[in-house]
Amino acid sequence: MGFSFVVAPDSFKESASAKEVCQAMERGIRRVYPDAIVHHVPMADGGEGTVEALVDATGGRLLRREVQGPLPDQKVVAQFGILGDGKTAVIEMAEASGLALVEREKRNPLITTTYGTGELLLAALDEGVEEIVIGIGGSATNDGGAGMAQALGAKLLDESGTEIGFGGGQLGRVARIDLDGMNPRLKNVKVRVACDVDNPLTGERGASAVFGPQKGASPDMVAQLDQNLGHYAEIIQRDLGKEVNAVEGAGAAGGLGAGLMAFTNASLEPGVKIVIDTTNLEAVVKDADFVFTGEGGMDFQTKFGKTPYGVAQVGYKYGKPVFAIAGTLGRDYEELYDHGMSAIFSTMLRPSTLDDALKEGAVNIEKTVESIVRMIKALKEN
Amino acid sequence: MGFSFVVAPDSFKESASAKEVCQAMERGIRRVYPDAIVHHVPMADGGEGTVEALVDATGGRLLRREVQGPLPDQKVVAQFGILGDGKTAVIEMAEASGLALVEREKRNPLITTTYGTGELLLAALDEGVEEIVIGIGGSATNDGGAGMAQALGAKLLDESGTEIGFGGGQLGRVARIDLDGMNPRLKNVKVRVACDVDNPLTGERGASAVFGPQKGASPDMVAQLDQNLGHYAEIIQRDLGKEVNAVEGAGAAGGLGAGLMAFTNASLEPGVKIVIDTTNLEAVVKDADFVFTGEGGMDFQTKFGKTPYGVAQVGYKYGKPVFAIAGTLGRDYEELYDHGMSAIFSTMLRPSTLDDALKEGAVNIEKTVESIVRMIKALKEN
Repeated sequence: MGFSFVVAPDSFKESASAKEVCQAMERGIRRVYPDAIVHHVPMADGGEGTVEALVDATGGRLLRREVQGPLPDQKVVAQFGILGDGKTAVIEMAEASGLALVEREKRNPLITTTYGTGELLLAALDEGVEEIVIGIGGSATNDGGAGMAQALGAKLLDESGTEIGFGGGQLGRVARIDLDGMNPRLKNVKVRVACDVDNPLTGERGASAVFGPQKGASPDMVAQLDQNLGHYAEIIQRDLGKEVNAVEGAGAAGGLGAGLMAFTNASLEPGVKIVIDTTNLEAVVKDADFVFTGEGGMDFQTKFGKTPYGVAQVGYKYGKPVFAIAGTLGRDYEELYDHGMSAIFSTMLRPSTLDDALKEGAVNIEKTVESIVRMIKALKEN
Repeated sequence: MGFSFVVAPDSFKESASAKEVCQAMERGIRRVYPDAIVHHVPMADGGEGTVEALVDATGGRLLRREVQGPLPDQKVVAQFGILGDGKTAVIEMAEASGLALVEREKRNPLITTTYGTGELLLAALDEGVEEIVIGIGGSATNDGGAGMAQALGAKLLDESGTEIGFGGGQLGRVARIDLDGMNPRLKNVKVRVACDVDNPLTGERGASAVFGPQKGASPDMVAQLDQNLGHYAEIIQRDLGKEVNAVEGAGAAGGLGAGLMAFTNASLEPGVKIVIDTTNLEAVVKDADFVFTGEGGMDFQTKFGKTPYGVAQVGYKYGKPVFAIAGTLGRDYEELYDHGMSAIFSTMLRPSTLDDALKEGAVNIEKTVESIVRMIKALKEN
């Protein structure tokens, strides 16, 4: 009787996708146990790579759409995924409205919009899904999800009944919100928002103050954006009956967290929890002997909701040894031993530059996993 | 009941001595099992660090003597060891007659001598030992051990009855050898020569042709040195009745191998075997649960007699898992899995320069051993 393994890593950024890491891990296992059972569960935590990982994990498919970019005059081609069940879509907001899409000197949250993210939600609705998973990290925007709401059919009107334009700079003009034109399918769709921050919409810990500057906001702009979001939240409360301002996570992605709560059936959850649910990780871990996870880098912060931490919790729950690997083990990574990880190894095989390490990523993963599995062999067969 | 460990590493060169590696390994073990039994056996393979390791392993002492250096006008302070039993001395020839003691432009095997090595042997005899272990790597000499013999009291005379001078260039003049003045204690002392090459004294694979150039010999000098060693071997055979020319290892250390066989009760053996015997490694491995070994660098060549290979053989013999670590895992290191190593890990924790890796050596060893012991905990307690 052979052992059965679950390999559930995140991507090793700039080196190997989660799927490629799974494959490298399997090769390492098979160097020792050619006939082992190896379940691949490419993972993510709601950040970059989540669409790819969930599509890979479930045998789904990738779709592409041209949508509105973050800047008013910008079009981008964005991908999203339909999972293997055909009933769940997965979106990364950064594909349509991400900071990486805007050159540094053009970054300006007064005008950047989440409209393209709304178009991706519409495209997902067009596929007939019942659930949408959306990762909201890496946004270029500070518009409270207003652009997204507009794409979905909401009307954000000023005093004169005219629709406001794109960007966080316009939100101070909103006088009332009209939902008559909203896409009707949205009512029956559950939206799971992968959100790992607990910032409220406004104030010192709000979207504008904390995340505005990295999106190009000057101190004056931060003040205006914060005031605008506060006004916007008041209108939402009056017209939609939803209090979003103080909710934990409302300030995520320039207030997209609040927007999703206001305009969709949204729940905000830790990203890795959503990925664990969606991939059905628990079911395979339950029946496995050993679990491998990993990520390009791990340190003490990994315990604040990164993939290897989430996987370790599942392993721990079912009493399975979890072995974690990373190219870079950073500050106080040993704290992770108290969080369900049985052993932690770097995949480095020798002193080397980061460039070389990235190039050799998959091979080093394979060899490191081989070593770990050889330990299993030595210890379990004696 | 706790586990018991043997830590038996070589040094991590330029980073940590074998003793320091043992200490780091113990700290790693105690991070997981504070009450574990940990036996330290600092190891070596007959090369650099052998004196230090054997003195550390046996609770012996280091002595220093001013002796003849490799060059005729050179004096050097050389250390050697008396082991904990008080009956065994350990010498590295390179301390007195090593290539590292001679500046590159002064290297000249026509004149370099092993006289200082002979003085170290005398100093060991003065300590009343019954056995001398001598590592002969790293020599600057090509004198067939003639200088050593002279220091021990042998007379190497030319046709006119005059003693020859220092260096491989003089050996062609030897007409007869007179042992009347030899130190009498030498008869009762066993000399174990740590030798990992099988080169004969002369010829294409002989000392002069293979090792002469790196000691500063030009092609013409190589030819002369080779001829001289051949003549010297003939005189040894005639006067001492010992055939040394064709013996495997006779060509080691510029023919010091032959000289030791001719003038002492010498046996040539793999260095790591001598160290294993001398440290009594088998006795502690036999009673241990797990064995750790390692060296600064390992690759497929480690199986040709390096320390981690020797330790792995002992572990294998007694059915104990052997875990090996190295800063640098080089070409085809995986071949070592077929040679008694249960698992092999690098101590690198992230991409880094060699300089940083050397500086962080002990800490990285500690953390890597911790990971391995955490695997033991996860796998043996379930």
